[in-house]
Amino acid sequence: MTISIGILVFEDAEELDFVGPWEVFSMANEVSKHLGEPPAHDVKLIAEHDGPVRCAKGLRVLPDLTTAQCQRLDVLLVPGGSGTRREVKNQALLDWIAAVALGAKWVTSVCTGALLLTAAGPARGRRVTTHGAFVETLRGRGEAAEVLADYRYIRDGNVVTAAGVSAGIDMALWLTGEMHTPEFARKVQRGMEYDPAPPYTAMT
Amino acid sequence: MTISIGILVFEDAEELDFVGPWEVFSMANEVSKHLGEPPAHDVKLIAEHDGPVRCAKGLRVLPDLTTAQCQRLDVLLVPGGSGTRREVKNQALLDWIAAVALGAKWVTSVCTGALLLTAAGPARGRRVTTHGAFVETLRGRGEAAEVLADYRYIRDGNVVTAAGVSAGIDMALWLTGEMHTPEFARKVQRGMEYDPAPPYTAMT
Repeated sequence: MTISIGILVFEDAEELDFVGPWEVFSMANEVSKHLGEPPAHDVKLIAEHDGPVRCAKGLRVLPDLTTAQCQRLDVLLVPGGSGTRREVKNQALLDWIAAVALGAKWVTSVCTGALLLTAAGPARGRRVTTHGAFVETLRGRGEAAEVLADYRYIRDGNVVTAAGVSAGIDMALWLTGEMHTPEFARKVQRGMEYDPAPPYTAMT
Repeated sequence: MTISIGILVFEDAEELDFVGPWEVFSMANEVSKHLGEPPAHDVKLIAEHDGPVRCAKGLRVLPDLTTAQCQRLDVLLVPGGSGTRREVKNQALLDWIAAVALGAKWVTSVCTGALLLTAAGPARGRRVTTHGAFVETLRGRGEAAEVLADYRYIRDGNVVTAAGVSAGIDMALWLTGEMHTPEFARKVQRGMEYDPAPPYTAMT
């Protein structure tokens, strides 16, 4: 059975936060095809309004559906980006996140998307993570049970929050393994050749 | 001095192939800002025609410029994706790639974008890499001096080709270090928290 995955976007959402998981979840359908199986996922980009969305670094994308057109999802993914500071005051969007999260099997965020998941409710009282530079701010809001640093992603029940930007790729692969099998996720990983080798030295 | 970077897109370009480098090159401007310097890069998405481009996995993006509007770039990046098999027969696009490459400091590809760089000329007679599943096909065309497998990216002169999909991130970080300093590239890496930890086991 095809799993419905909705990836939220908004003005100033961070590009790689959502395109990383988009690639993972949709590459899974290539794997399904090779296995002679129906598509693993139905992946859609969702925005509050129709028309182009300008991301944090200027990339313009077109959503597939508006939030009004989408009330049911198996998986919700909320990216981060500077736009989260504006959207955290957008009660209509927070209400949509809360409503969709109620019926979802998995509720996920990348980077500062954790801010929207805590403010909207699904991640309130949960252990979460976010971009390292945002950990103290999120702790200061007091909505999460705990805001952990130095983890690529944290699972608390059906809520999975990833660290900054590129961590969404790791999280989406992990979730793909949970929803299917680790072996299936490894095939997705091979399809996108995710065998990372950052140049120069380690990040720290 | 701001470096102009043009990222080509076409129908069925692979999403992460170009959004990974887009994130790296544009995150560099956040680092510039923090250092009180002018923007490191002017990053633009370029397509043959105006209007939405539908990528390989269905994401729709809007280009910033058409190829006709862009004849000079410091850095050209050509992504892969199933669309390369069609574009390799698009002589107008190959001519544009060849012309822009002549004046560019760096000519780069990700994944099967290497097919377009060899067909257009800039990577002809060079050592290159591509997606592992495409290595034999590219060898069969006989345009590259050598098509190497199992490298994240290969530099031959001013031509840099990356392996599949996610390898574009590693290549773009390396190139950022070459164009600026490794220390600068490390700051970009930290900004996007590229400290990858693929779940389950290694890819092989």
